[in-house]
Amino acid sequence: MSTAIDELQAIIAELKTELEEQKTSTRIARERIERMSAEVVDSNPYSRLMALQRMNIVKDYERIRDKAVAIVGVGGVGSVTADMLTRCGIGKLILFDYDKVELANMNRLFFTPDQAGLSKVEAAARTLSFINPDVVIETHNYNITTVENFDKFLTTISESGLQKGQPVDLVLSCVDNFEARMAINAACNENNLNWFESGVSENAVSGHIQFIRPGETACFACAPPLVVAENIDERTLKREGVCAASLPTTMGITAGLLVQNALKYLLNFGEVSDYLGYNALNDFFPKMTLKPNAECDDRYCLQRQKEFQARPQPKEQQIDEVVSNEPLHASNDWGIELVAEDAPVEQQTTNTTNVASGLRLAYEAPDKVDVNQSESAAVVNAGLPETSLDDLMAQMKSM
Amino acid sequence: MSTAIDELQAIIAELKTELEEQKTSTRIARERIERMSAEVVDSNPYSRLMALQRMNIVKDYERIRDKAVAIVGVGGVGSVTADMLTRCGIGKLILFDYDKVELANMNRLFFTPDQAGLSKVEAAARTLSFINPDVVIETHNYNITTVENFDKFLTTISESGLQKGQPVDLVLSCVDNFEARMAINAACNENNLNWFESGVSENAVSGHIQFIRPGETACFACAPPLVVAENIDERTLKREGVCAASLPTTMGITAGLLVQNALKYLLNFGEVSDYLGYNALNDFFPKMTLKPNAECDDRYCLQRQKEFQARPQPKEQQIDEVVSNEPLHASNDWGIELVAEDAPVEQQTTNTTNVASGLRLAYEAPDKVDVNQSESAAVVNAGLPETSLDDLMAQMKSM
Repeated sequence: MSTAIDELQAIIAELKTELEEQKTSTRIARERIERMSAEVVDSNPYSRLMALQRMNIVKDYERIRDKAVAIVGVGGVGSVTADMLTRCGIGKLILFDYDKVELANMNRLFFTPDQAGLSKVEAAARTLSFINPDVVIETHNYNITTVENFDKFLTTISESGLQKGQPVDLVLSCVDNFEARMAINAACNENNLNWFESGVSENAVSGHIQFIRPGETACFACAPPLVVAENIDERTLKREGVCAASLPTTMGITAGLLVQNALKYLLNFGEVSDYLGYNALNDFFPKMTLKPNAECDDRYCLQRQKEFQARPQPKEQQIDEVVSNEPLHASNDWGIELVAEDAPVEQQTTNTTNVASGLRLAYEAPDKVDVNQSESAAVVNAGLPETSLDDLMAQMKSM
Repeated sequence: MSTAIDELQAIIAELKTELEEQKTSTRIARERIERMSAEVVDSNPYSRLMALQRMNIVKDYERIRDKAVAIVGVGGVGSVTADMLTRCGIGKLILFDYDKVELANMNRLFFTPDQAGLSKVEAAARTLSFINPDVVIETHNYNITTVENFDKFLTTISESGLQKGQPVDLVLSCVDNFEARMAINAACNENNLNWFESGVSENAVSGHIQFIRPGETACFACAPPLVVAENIDERTLKREGVCAASLPTTMGITAGLLVQNALKYLLNFGEVSDYLGYNALNDFFPKMTLKPNAECDDRYCLQRQKEFQARPQPKEQQIDEVVSNEPLHASNDWGIELVAEDAPVEQQTTNTTNVASGLRLAYEAPDKVDVNQSESAAVVNAGLPETSLDDLMAQMKSM
């Protein structure tokens, strides 16, 4: 009799273990793969990627395994970004977020309703490891904008590359607020790390990516939004009962453009876009390049600018097309005109001294701007006196 | 003692049920929601979509629940398309595919390694129902190109709308071969149904979507690839040990552009693009409109053309920009030039009479094409004599 009970208890223990594995997704869907193979068999998860070599797109695809990428913000754009890089077989992902998954996130790809309540980095890491156990996933569940955490963030991106003590190969910003973008910008300027900024608008129908190379292109502080929150949490600025709209399409496309350009940069194929916008209403994709602001507030940016100018410039590294003393939308490759949603940095009003409580002007706007006076591409006044504070707020959120 | 055994057995039965539920994903992550609410709370999966109304993007978002969409092909593009529409809260999805999930598919979004071996429609339906139980999912696990199945397909898209006996609101083609596209085209011409064609290139770095309105714009038979397979399975034409390259980025972006334009059409906002290409190497997005071919091989297309011409044309419904007696890449909105990958239909060779075994020319190419002779936009010879058969094959696959 006691043998029967022992056996039943053994079965229960086994079932409980299996159930726990199912629930926590610690179960293994496939074994790790030592080397990427180009063999064309159904069981090879890398055959379609290695085929990029045969198609003469990428010279040595497997180099992707040597790359470490930090993703800051694992929301609508960041989670899909992580998913894509994981499926591409990236060497290492370092995820930063301090938010929790909510049912209200289900209108974007990646997270599932059963993950509601879990931390985003934890939920993402489980799913990503399950999809591709070859990728090293590291998670950081904190807000990078506090003083203490900023230092941890700074150290992490400068020392958590694939080789111990080496910096990551690229930082991808997928955050949804100004403060976090400024923190990433400061850290990347200090560490001299290339990074991509990304964003989608509050009305869900436009997005953008921007490739920032310290000293070579405008940093985020070179061309900030004009009006920003001061001494107040940006989130509490939102009106009661109002939230930003979002769509899985716009988020997925923005993540796709971000990762595609990251791949082009990491694997050295095609042309990496410096700035690429997406307007969903009319399928319009503006491109441009912003040069650094010689009067940037970030001292590391100024230092990187000096270093860049001192470097010998190979012809192909020069920025062919800079916009300096003119309004930013004056010209570009296709001779098209930028629209407001895609280039918030270029819109300023001349009369916004009466900003609402909790806001400040990022720059003291002179009464009259002499467009020939400033070297800076970023602070040119585009003269849109009809722009309201609400519009500016929307633009700020859309950054 | 026997009570103890009974209790243990009851526990085992319970654990087994729970484990089965975990394994088959029949567990419910959230209850169905009767009506979409705009309430801004973390537990509302529709708050960010309903916010499109407040942002003045969509007038009545909840109408999406009255829409039924058929997705043919649930691979790299189709599965993400289904995922996005499910998260948007579409009324009903009807999925067609006859393939199985393989590990070789893991370099694209959506499917997970544990689903290897399952039919794509079955695996997709489980995941989609779990993500959003409000969406009605119907699956069809067969090849639509056989005579018998084509009739089933024809009937399904004409009678499986949300109201019994009504047609679906839209058909989305996410297939990877010519034969299936021709089948969808024939069915939509016969049923007079609007549909989107989509595709990605064999080298993974370009994609396109095309909106086809029978009689109003070129159908797929109006402008087919020049060289197609004949009496031979397209798949066996592939060289031994060679497969197409693919990337989660290009597939995700193509799906995003497809669903975004489908949403614009279904919910009546923004401008729906007739043709939108994407070239990943230089972030180039050509747009154009193709008018129908008066000599199209599809008799239903000719009938729809007559019906369309007989309809009174409101000014805003007219096609502003048609490309007729010129090479297709002559002009478009942005004054840009089309590149080969983005518009396979415009590339033909003048000397391909010696096609390989298993191929035929879709049209008998005249020795010299008088571009002023034909009314057709589709069969204009763009004169690229250096195009090799391999290139044409790559283009055919990329359609």
